[in-house]
Amino acid sequence: MCPAFRPRSVAPLRYSRGLAQIHDRCDFAWRALCGRGNIKILMQPLRVTIWNEFIHERENPAVARAYPRGIHQALADAISRESGVSARTATLDQPEQGLPQAILDDTDVLVWWGHAAHEAVEDRLVTRAQERVLGGMGLVVLHSGHYSKIFKRLMGTGCGLCWREAGERERVWVVNPGHPIAAGARDCIELEQSEMYGEPFAIPTPDDLIFVSWFEGGEVFRSGCTWTRGSGRIFYFSPGHEAYPIYHHPDIQKVIVNGIHWARPQGRPADVPRNVAVEQAREKLTRKGPSVHDAAGRVASRSGGA
Amino acid sequence: MCPAFRPRSVAPLRYSRGLAQIHDRCDFAWRALCGRGNIKILMQPLRVTIWNEFIHERENPAVARAYPRGIHQALADAISRESGVSARTATLDQPEQGLPQAILDDTDVLVWWGHAAHEAVEDRLVTRAQERVLGGMGLVVLHSGHYSKIFKRLMGTGCGLCWREAGERERVWVVNPGHPIAAGARDCIELEQSEMYGEPFAIPTPDDLIFVSWFEGGEVFRSGCTWTRGSGRIFYFSPGHEAYPIYHHPDIQKVIVNGIHWARPQGRPADVPRNVAVEQAREKLTRKGPSVHDAAGRVASRSGGA
Amino acid sequence: MCPAFRPRSVAPLRYSRGLAQIHDRCDFAWRALCGRGNIKILMQPLRVTIWNEFIHERENPAVARAYPRGIHQALADAISRESGVSARTATLDQPEQGLPQAILDDTDVLVWWGHAAHEAVEDRLVTRAQERVLGGMGLVVLHSGHYSKIFKRLMGTGCGLCWREAGERERVWVVNPGHPIAAGARDCIELEQSEMYGEPFAIPTPDDLIFVSWFEGGEVFRSGCTWTRGSGRIFYFSPGHEAYPIYHHPDIQKVIVNGIHWARPQGRPADVPRNVAVEQAREKLTRKGPSVHDAAGRVASRSGGA
Amino acid sequence: MCPAFRPRSVAPLRYSRGLAQIHDRCDFAWRALCGRGNIKILMQPLRVTIWNEFIHERENPAVARAYPRGIHQALADAISRESGVSARTATLDQPEQGLPQAILDDTDVLVWWGHAAHEAVEDRLVTRAQERVLGGMGLVVLHSGHYSKIFKRLMGTGCGLCWREAGERERVWVVNPGHPIAAGARDCIELEQSEMYGEPFAIPTPDDLIFVSWFEGGEVFRSGCTWTRGSGRIFYFSPGHEAYPIYHHPDIQKVIVNGIHWARPQGRPADVPRNVAVEQAREKLTRKGPSVHDAAGRVASRSGGA
Repeated sequence: MCPAFRPRSVAPLRYSRGLAQIHDRCDFAWRALCGRGNIKILMQPLRVTIWNEFIHERENPAVARAYPRGIHQALADAISRESGVSARTATLDQPEQGLPQAILDDTDVLVWWGHAAHEAVEDRLVTRAQERVLGGMGLVVLHSGHYSKIFKRLMGTGCGLCWREAGERERVWVVNPGHPIAAGARDCIELEQSEMYGEPFAIPTPDDLIFVSWFEGGEVFRSGCTWTRGSGRIFYFSPGHEAYPIYHHPDIQKVIVNGIHWARPQGRPADVPRNVAVEQAREKLTRKGPSVHDAAGRVASRSGGA
Repeated sequence: MCPAFRPRSVAPLRYSRGLAQIHDRCDFAWRALCGRGNIKILMQPLRVTIWNEFIHERENPAVARAYPRGIHQALADAISRESGVSARTATLDQPEQGLPQAILDDTDVLVWWGHAAHEAVEDRLVTRAQERVLGGMGLVVLHSGHYSKIFKRLMGTGCGLCWREAGERERVWVVNPGHPIAAGARDCIELEQSEMYGEPFAIPTPDDLIFVSWFEGGEVFRSGCTWTRGSGRIFYFSPGHEAYPIYHHPDIQKVIVNGIHWARPQGRPADVPRNVAVEQAREKLTRKGPSVHDAAGRVASRSGGA
Repeated sequence: MCPAFRPRSVAPLRYSRGLAQIHDRCDFAWRALCGRGNIKILMQPLRVTIWNEFIHERENPAVARAYPRGIHQALADAISRESGVSARTATLDQPEQGLPQAILDDTDVLVWWGHAAHEAVEDRLVTRAQERVLGGMGLVVLHSGHYSKIFKRLMGTGCGLCWREAGERERVWVVNPGHPIAAGARDCIELEQSEMYGEPFAIPTPDDLIFVSWFEGGEVFRSGCTWTRGSGRIFYFSPGHEAYPIYHHPDIQKVIVNGIHWARPQGRPADVPRNVAVEQAREKLTRKGPSVHDAAGRVASRSGGA
Repeated sequence: MCPAFRPRSVAPLRYSRGLAQIHDRCDFAWRALCGRGNIKILMQPLRVTIWNEFIHERENPAVARAYPRGIHQALADAISRESGVSARTATLDQPEQGLPQAILDDTDVLVWWGHAAHEAVEDRLVTRAQERVLGGMGLVVLHSGHYSKIFKRLMGTGCGLCWREAGERERVWVVNPGHPIAAGARDCIELEQSEMYGEPFAIPTPDDLIFVSWFEGGEVFRSGCTWTRGSGRIFYFSPGHEAYPIYHHPDIQKVIVNGIHWARPQGRPADVPRNVAVEQAREKLTRKGPSVHDAAGRVASRSGGA
C-alpha cells in the first residue's frame, strides 16, 4: 500500500465503488514508490494544454463579463484544482498560434475551444496536432470546437449540427453511468441558459455515447461522445457557450476533468508504415513471383507506401 | 409478384435463405412495376465508377501481363457481368483527373485503386469526392488504396500498415458470415500469391469486420472492413496486388460486387449546418440572455458555424 | 431490366436517391427472372410474423378503443399495405404460445409486442426464437417489448429504463438520416401523447443509433437502435404505447416497415461449433504435444465444446 | 506529488509514455493521502477472484504436469506478483460452486476458466454473476470459457468457434497497440504449442479488438476482445490451453493482468427500472389521456416493467 513505510499509522479503508479509481491508482503509486525499492521518485503531473482562440472575450462585453480572463483561463483554474494535473493555456494570438511543436510534444491532453476563427488556424498546425493525437495525445473538444479544423480532420466528416441561441434550458442526461467520464455525475446536469445544439450531428458513430441533451425548444443532441483515432482518445462535450457561465458550473467542470483523465495517453503508437523484409518473416519464406517494390519495400512513386 | 401479369405461367419457388436477397428485391420490382399500375418503367442500373491511377500497368511488364488493359478495366469487366450495374472507368491522366463534378454526381458507388501516385491526386478532387461520400455516394477502396488521400481523409488516421511483397500465400477468412458482403463466400478465399499486408492497420475501429487474412509468413490483417461516414458507406478490401492476378479470381470479384451493392446510397444526407430560428422552435420559446450571433444565426467570423 | 421481355413498352426512369432501393432490387428481380433463362419464377413475399401477448386490448377499455382487434392486427394491416410483405399474427393464447417451430422456421422477420405477460412466455420458446435470430431471422422489438425475455436474452443485459405514463408529448428525432430505417422520415416525428421512456436504457451500445426521443417532461431516450446477433438483425423502436393510437400514425408505421425490411435475413449462419481435424488443416500439420480431446474433437465433458 | 511530505528526498522523473499509467495513478494516491489531510488511509487492493472448474488437472496427467496445483493457482500466483491486486481462487467443487453471493459481492474482477463442466454450473449462479457484471464487476474470460454459461449469457449469442488440438504454433498479434490491455506487449506473442481456435467466432461485434491470432494450420482468430455490458467490462482472451504451459508465459500473464486492471469497476450501475412520477417530472406536467399503470407505475402483470 502506498504509505506502507509508515505501516503502524495506517487504518484500513474499505474498498468501495466510489473509491475504485483512487484505489487502483494508489496501488500503482505504491508500485512506483516502493516496488522499485526507491521512494525518491517524483512523478510529474498530467500535462494539459488548453487552447482558446480568445476572440469573443475581447470583443463582446457579454462574453467578457462571463469570462473576464478568457474561457481558457476559467478552464485552467477549474482543472488545476485537481492535484496531479498541470494545466497551461495557449491562444491563437501567440507565436505559432500558441502550439509550437515543443508545446504539443509536452502535452498529454489538449483541450480545444474555438468559434469565430476556425479558418484562421493554419493547416500545418492542424497536421501537427493530428499527428500527436494519432501518436497518443488525448484531445478534449468543447462546444463550438465541433467545427474546428482539428476535430473535422480527425472525424473525416463535416461535423455540422443545428443550433439556436436563445438562452433556453438544457438538460445533459447521463446515458452511460458506467463510463468513467460520467463518474460522480448525477442523472442529469441542468443548465438554465444554454445554446441549443440539435441533431443530426454529422459525426461518425461514437465509440461511446455518454451524454444526450434535452432542450427546452424541443430538440435533442448527443452532447458527450468519445472516439479513438490511432492511439489517441478524443472526447467531445457540447455544453459551454461563450456568453453563458456554463464553464463555472461545478458539474460541467467535473465532466471535463473526467474527460481529461480518460483521454490521457494509453498504450503506444502503431509502428507503421513498415516494410517487413522477406528475411524477417516469422515463418521461413522464399520470394515468389513478380514485384513492384525494391528490396527496401519502396515503390517508384511520389507517395511511397505499401 | 413480379411477373404477375402472366399468372398462369408462373410456378411458385419456395423462399429460402439462399434466395432471400433475390426475393425481397423482386418484390420491390413488383411494386415498381405493378404497384404503380404501370409496367412501362425501366430502371436504370447502379452507376459505378472505377478509378485507377493506371501507372504500374503501363510501366511494369509484370503488371501489364496481369492487367493488359489496366486494373480498372479488369474490374469493370467483372462488375459489368452483373446485370443492373453500369460500370464506367476513370483514370488519373484524364481531364480533371478523371473525376469532374459531373461524373461524381452521376456516380452511386466509386471504386478506388491507387498506389504510385497518391500524392498526385489534387486536394480539391479529394474534397469533392469526400463531399459526395458524406452526401451518400458509396466508396469501395481496394488494396494499396488504403493510402489514398480520399481514404485517409475519410478515416482521419494515417492508414499505415506493415507489408511484404514476396508472392506468399494468403487466406481471406470470413469472420462475419451473416454480413451481405460475405454472401456467397465460402469459409475462406485462398490466394496462392499475394502481397502481405499486416497489423497494426492504422484505421478507426470498423463498424463491421468481415474478413481477416492469414499470411504464409506469419502475419494477420483485417482485410475487409466497413465504415459509415455521413450518409455514405465505405468498404475497404485489401486483396488485390497489381502484379498478381487476384482481380481475376471469381471469389474476389464476388466480394467486390457485394461490396458495391452494399455501399449503394441509402437514406438521405443530413441537412446541416442549419440555424433554427427562435420562432421555429417546436416548443414556444422566448429569447433569454446575451447572444453572440445575429438573427440569422451567424457569428462574426471567417468560418461561421454554430 | 425486369420486364425486358416487353422491351418496346418500357420507358426510362432516371435513377435517383429516392428510387435507389427500388432500383437495385429490380435488378435482382431481373437476374432472377431472366438471368436464369426462366420467367416462370414466382417469388414469395417477405414472411413477417407479428407476435402480441394480446392482453391489454381485452382487459382495458382504453386500449380496446385504440386497438379493437389488437395491436398485432393494427400492425399487420399497416405492414400488409406494403406489397411484397406477407404479415401474419400470433398471440400468447394460441397453441405453443403462437410460435411453434414450424411458424418460426417460416418467418423471415418476427415483430414482438408484450407488456403484461413477459414472464408467461416459456423459456423453451425464447430459446427457439433466439436460435432463429442467431441463424438469420430478423427481430423487430416494439415499445414495452424492451423487457421481453427474447430481447433480454439477445442483449445480455437488464434492458431496464425509466418511464412515466402521463400522455405527454414525444418527439422522435432522426439522428442518422443516412440509415435505411430512417428512409422517408422527416427530421422528427411528433406524437402528441406518449409514454415517457427515459435514460439510462440498460442495453449494450447499439451498432447504429437512428432515433433519439425528446419528452415534454424533460427526458431523452435512445428510441431507435439496431444490433446484429449471430446472422440476425435486431431493431428496437420504443414509440407505441398500448393506450395511445401511435401505431396508427403513418410515420411510425413507415419506420416499422423500414425496420422489417432492414432486418430481413442476410448472408448465412456461422457453421460453428466445428472441430477441424488435423488432416483437414489447410497447411500441412503434424500433431504435437498432449491432448485432452479425442480424434473427433470431443472432450470428456457434459457440454462438449472446444 | 505523492511523497511530497518528504520533498527533499524526491528526485524528478520525467513523465513518459511508458510511465503514463503509473503517473496519473500516483497523483490519485496523492489526493487520497494528502488531499484529505490524512495519511492514515490504507487502500485495499483490487479484489480478483479466479474461478476454475478444476477437472482436467485432476483427471489428465498431461494437464496435471502443466498445472500441478490447478490453472487457477497458476493464474493466482502470476497475478499476485502485481502488488495492489489481491487474488483468491474458487472452484466448482466448493460450496455454492465456489461463488456464494458474499464472494461475488467482494469481487472487483472475476476471472473464469472452464471447459469440461460448463453445464454443471447452476443457472442461479450464472444469474448472480451476470447481475454483478451488469452492476460493475469486471469479467475476464479465458480460452474455453468462451463456451461458459456466464459468457454466453452476457453475449446473447452461441459463442461457438472452430477448433483443432494439434499443438501447433500460434502468434497473437496486437492490432490495437494504443489499448491499455496491450500495454507492454510486443508486436506479437509467439506460442510454440497451442490449440487452434478459428473463425467464425459467434460473438457480438467487440467494442475493441485488441489481438488477432495466426495459426500454423492456416486459420485466424479474434483472440482478444472487449465488451461493456451494463456497467461491467468484459475481456475475452483465447490463449490458454490446459495441456500446454501457456499461462506460464510472462507475456500472456501480462495481458491477463492488464485485462484485469482494465476491467476494474468504473462509474456506477444504472438506477433502472424506475418509474418517474408525474409530480417528479423536471418540466411541469399534467397527466393526459388513459393509463394502464397505477400511480406507482405498476401494470397488472406478472413481470411488471414499463
